[in-house]
Amino acid sequence: MILDRQSSVPLHVQVTDYIKEKIRTGEWVVGSRLPSQRNLAEELLVNRSTVIAAFEELAAQELIEGNRGGGTMVVNNTWGLMAGKQMVNWETYVESGQYKPNLPMIRKINEAEFDPAIIRIGTGELSPDLLPSDTFADLLRKTPAQSLALGYQEPKGDLHLREQVSQYLKGIGIAAGSSSILVVSGALQALQLISNGLLDRGSAIMLEKPSYLYSVHVFQSTGMRFVSLPMDAEGLHPGKLADYKREYHGTTVYTIPSFHNPTGTLMSENRRRQLLSVCEKERLPIIEDDVYRDLWFEAPPPPALKSRDKTGNVLYIGSLSKVLSPGLRIGWIVGPQPVIDRLADIKMQSDYGASSLSQWVAGEFLRTGLYEKQVSLVREQLRKRRDDLIDLLHTYFSDIGRWRVPKGGFYIWLNLVPAIDPRQLFERALKKSILLNPGILYDRGARQYLRLSYAYASQKEMEQAIRILRKLVIESGR
Amino acid sequence: MILDRQSSVPLHVQVTDYIKEKIRTGEWVVGSRLPSQRNLAEELLVNRSTVIAAFEELAAQELIEGNRGGGTMVVNNTWGLMAGKQMVNWETYVESGQYKPNLPMIRKINEAEFDPAIIRIGTGELSPDLLPSDTFADLLRKTPAQSLALGYQEPKGDLHLREQVSQYLKGIGIAAGSSSILVVSGALQALQLISNGLLDRGSAIMLEKPSYLYSVHVFQSTGMRFVSLPMDAEGLHPGKLADYKREYHGTTVYTIPSFHNPTGTLMSENRRRQLLSVCEKERLPIIEDDVYRDLWFEAPPPPALKSRDKTGNVLYIGSLSKVLSPGLRIGWIVGPQPVIDRLADIKMQSDYGASSLSQWVAGEFLRTGLYEKQVSLVREQLRKRRDDLIDLLHTYFSDIGRWRVPKGGFYIWLNLVPAIDPRQLFERALKKSILLNPGILYDRGARQYLRLSYAYASQKEMEQAIRILRKLVIESGR
Repeated sequence: MILDRQSSVPLHVQVTDYIKEKIRTGEWVVGSRLPSQRNLAEELLVNRSTVIAAFEELAAQELIEGNRGGGTMVVNNTWGLMAGKQMVNWETYVESGQYKPNLPMIRKINEAEFDPAIIRIGTGELSPDLLPSDTFADLLRKTPAQSLALGYQEPKGDLHLREQVSQYLKGIGIAAGSSSILVVSGALQALQLISNGLLDRGSAIMLEKPSYLYSVHVFQSTGMRFVSLPMDAEGLHPGKLADYKREYHGTTVYTIPSFHNPTGTLMSENRRRQLLSVCEKERLPIIEDDVYRDLWFEAPPPPALKSRDKTGNVLYIGSLSKVLSPGLRIGWIVGPQPVIDRLADIKMQSDYGASSLSQWVAGEFLRTGLYEKQVSLVREQLRKRRDDLIDLLHTYFSDIGRWRVPKGGFYIWLNLVPAIDPRQLFERALKKSILLNPGILYDRGARQYLRLSYAYASQKEMEQAIRILRKLVIESGR
Repeated sequence: MILDRQSSVPLHVQVTDYIKEKIRTGEWVVGSRLPSQRNLAEELLVNRSTVIAAFEELAAQELIEGNRGGGTMVVNNTWGLMAGKQMVNWETYVESGQYKPNLPMIRKINEAEFDPAIIRIGTGELSPDLLPSDTFADLLRKTPAQSLALGYQEPKGDLHLREQVSQYLKGIGIAAGSSSILVVSGALQALQLISNGLLDRGSAIMLEKPSYLYSVHVFQSTGMRFVSLPMDAEGLHPGKLADYKREYHGTTVYTIPSFHNPTGTLMSENRRRQLLSVCEKERLPIIEDDVYRDLWFEAPPPPALKSRDKTGNVLYIGSLSKVLSPGLRIGWIVGPQPVIDRLADIKMQSDYGASSLSQWVAGEFLRTGLYEKQVSLVREQLRKRRDDLIDLLHTYFSDIGRWRVPKGGFYIWLNLVPAIDPRQLFERALKKSILLNPGILYDRGARQYLRLSYAYASQKEMEQAIRILRKLVIESGR
């Protein structure tokens, strides 16, 4: 193999691949010693620093390892090699192929979230003291042995739970029988099933910019493309939908109309009607991700798109994760029955359904009215937390930030005035034990934004973090 | 569009596609009336029966509907159309592209399994009276509120559970720290994660023939190919591995060495050593699916491949579904840490982890020794059930069937002597309320085989079913 100096692939990556190929084909077997960096550099006509970078990458992938004698050994192959190789494919985002740098940040976030010393001011999750542990334990204590379905469940999920969900949906204006409801292991799996089961490889999904969807790989990893739609204070703007459908072959619209993640925006009544009417006219199906709906503060959001859907255009996603318990892993998809049948079939092929224990507890929460009780409590607490965070922002960010006051949900989309380097700010904050969710996770152009969440950190932690954050932003902006 | 009469696609399918395209592009909108069958037949120069077949297909997909006036209306589009369209892709198996007919049968099985009047004599699931409902309820009663982790879990799963799994693995000779273990929602999800995360599209997986894997779509749907390996009474025969690796570019071996599904075969000690040594030499990674290991009757199986794996060649899959409760949806993958890290990352991207409630209960079962108690009980019961089924086979099938006596697990691979039509036998049995798992689900050449399972049906039901089955086989073989 000769290195390609014209290629856009950096030389150290080419050297990494060169060595991997030697390991893969068994030319360099596990336990064998690699040529010295100097020799390899001479052989490949590259700087020694290029070889060093390649060795570091291979060591990080645990394929090679330095030994005490100063040499370098091959220590792993097969699965290790596959994991390393695919890592690259997996990270290949499709929109302009430029999203790669985000993944390490998300992985860092996933890890830091389990460090108890870290203050998390962007986490999309309720604080543990808002989760109804006692009520859970109570429900579990009362579980009669005979009502535990320990076997496999029906493809669409436990009937008891689906009937309760059907009732719940009725309460928010959506008519759906239990056979039009599929129980899933959270909203993320709902998206995965839709992506695997209904969308062709290479489909273009039109969605808000920014969007939560940019931070997860569920669609990109199955080869979907994203087409960004503008949004304003009233939510997604559907004006360009028809054009984009033609221009970019948009096949589906994905939207979070109620308390949008990450901006907190509530789509207005008027905008909802516009969106529905454009999509009906253009025969564009909609994925309505409505997992924050119940978390309103002053007044309930306008009716769901699904509640006005006459043509089966809307697939509706709900979840218990944002109100009750993310660990339960229970959500649902609502749609036309043949579509739900299809998705149920795929769910069976992927994991044989959600935990029956979780399904049982979820059904009991809904049946007994304990869910409603929990919702009221969370609403009240979240509103208080939102007010506190807004107060803090007034105190510490009035000169260096802009924000809108959300009417529900978890998030404030903080626009920072001083020009910052988001990766640097993220790293510096992490050194101070503060975990940020930078805007670039949700829109790579949103360098001047942070997603703040008042759902997780305590008031005391939040005050501490916001005070430190102010300093970091000002330093960073210099 | 002009129909292509030279095409291998049947004319009625072409007509169906023609109409779908009209609906998709909006030429025929929802609510509009279709041309009459006669007119359409004339326009397309086909028989009216061809148009009728197309209409029936479209009606089955709920895209069109007859109305009282005798006309036919378009009643659905967008999602309905996507569900219909993709159905075809999803069903496209890759090995010779010929597996399509299986899927409807599997779907029928999935549905019939929830009909309480049906006797299931091939189901890979413990009978409800073997599931430890009381112990479960007991454990739940004793759950302290503070031990319930209702939030999101660490990417690799609840640490408490992973530590228990690590202990359990030690007991079967596998050394694996908690960071080399990934908790998954059952073994099927383990395969999905491996398929999505480690294997390239178009990879060839070498596996036993027959195999459970042929009956699920987890690999095929991500574009994998299957290369079948012969097996005998000692299990998979690795003699051809090296050749097949080269000839078909085989990249991975998948095997169920202990109480193989569907044949019940236990791979011998000797064969295990051979397989490991060939794979190490050929640098072929192995997926060891060992979910039936604990269900031995007279003596434990030979050590797992993983327990002798020095080079990180083996990914090991275990599960609680076959012993404790399928509804719990708890299994694990064990492998080199970088590989497990990678798979954990993908798990986070697909469903944010398994139910924390399920994980907690699973951990408690292992920690308290209740798992071991349950295993002993299930072993004893299954052995009795195996003996009973073998007795029944001696009584009713000695002249028309051949079988081996399994040493553990759930299955007997019944070879029928009279030449039968498996689909017809399946349908006829279903009419008599007996649900069969025909051999063709696991190997499309295995037309003369049934997978029997003594795990599910009661002795009484089994006797009744086997008696009826004898008649059906003899009739069918005429």
